Amino acid sequence: MTPTITNELLSALQWRYATKQFDATRKLDEPSIHALTESLRLAPSSFGLQPWKFFLIENPELRQKLRANSWNQPQVTDASHLIVLAVKQAITHEDVAAWMEQLATIQNTPTQSLSMLSSMINGFTSQMDAAQMLSWNTRQVYIALGQLMTSAALLGIDTCPLEGINPAAYDTLLGLENSGYTTVVACAIGQRCADDKYATIPKARKSAEQVITRL
Amino acid sequence: MTPTITNELLSALQWRYATKQFDATRKLDEPSIHALTESLRLAPSSFGLQPWKFFLIENPELRQKLRANSWNQPQVTDASHLIVLAVKQAITHEDVAAWMEQLATIQNTPTQSLSMLSSMINGFTSQMDAAQMLSWNTRQVYIALGQLMTSAALLGIDTCPLEGINPAAYDTLLGLENSGYTTVVACAIGQRCADDKYATIPKARKSAEQVITRL
Repeated sequence: MTPTITNELLSALQWRYATKQFDATRKLDEPSIHALTESLRLAPSSFGLQPWKFFLIENPELRQKLRANSWNQPQVTDASHLIVLAVKQAITHEDVAAWMEQLATIQNTPTQSLSMLSSMINGFTSQMDAAQMLSWNTRQVYIALGQLMTSAALLGIDTCPLEGINPAAYDTLLGLENSGYTTVVACAIGQRCADDKYATIPKARKSAEQVITRL
Repeated sequence: MTPTITNELLSALQWRYATKQFDATRKLDEPSIHALTESLRLAPSSFGLQPWKFFLIENPELRQKLRANSWNQPQVTDASHLIVLAVKQAITHEDVAAWMEQLATIQNTPTQSLSMLSSMINGFTSQMDAAQMLSWNTRQVYIALGQLMTSAALLGIDTCPLEGINPAAYDTLLGLENSGYTTVVACAIGQRCADDKYATIPKARKSAEQVITRL
């Protein structure tokens, strides 16, 4: 670990905030877009199952419709892009088998060599009911959301996570109905307005004493 | 955004993996520990409510007991430290009021000026039953987990998230019973063994075409 990168990281985490006003004139460049979508794609997940899909939305008309289903929050339309994070509702044995095939190809190993992993995953998921599986998968999506926001901050890109959205309406607008996936949360990405007053108020967090216990 | 930091970030995200064998002889230094605990403390959460507590555990005896409640996974004892992430099960009106007091102090503003925010939060949480609130709060903890793992990767620190733990046993060992908090997930942090074979197998992720849709 170098002191430089540690300082850069801590500065970035202090710098970030839930941006209220994005500068609608500033669009993220392709290298930034690529880095952020990669941060989502590469996010860790339980058993590596990646129970998710991500939408990177620039289309103004679509964003206007999404905004109407997001308590009219301006970030939906004014940010450079809106990312919508969707969860795979269930992990079936067929899903596991398909992923094992792909995994075997990536790792250049026979599919049979993954049979223990496959059995373990199927044994684990078989113990969950539909609601438990959806909750479990949804938690994995929040790891990706965390990785996205941290990565963006490090790159000097602003974000605003948006839980105040209508997932059913989003599903309709994104064509997710009956797809096996459903909308979980959104995140606006772009650059803050110079005069967003929320940018300058002190960051509000509990103290280390309140939240960290060393044992 | 500079190309250097973008490349560093993407390299770090490719470098990280769920470490199976930690080098038990390598302890993280205090600046690293500080950076990682700060990444947890500064994590974003819904309404900024921070419904969490984090345990940074080095004590070998305690970790031996935790390992016995973690399917005997060696990371629990062999990593430099184990972090346990616990969730606040419910957000009461009293919790909100206490946080508003602290927020007012941090932001040097009268508590009354936060009454709209306070009402909004209370209105929102009043609509949830206990299970919904626990799920919602737990999702926030996963943002912190994501921020932790991304931050660690950037600092060249290895991690292994551990969902395969017995939360009730962890609660007993950490003194969380009847505290209003409960164990969610753990994460081992430290440095990989030079010969952990999982470090060198190709990273397995779905392709961008499979998980990213641009609209």
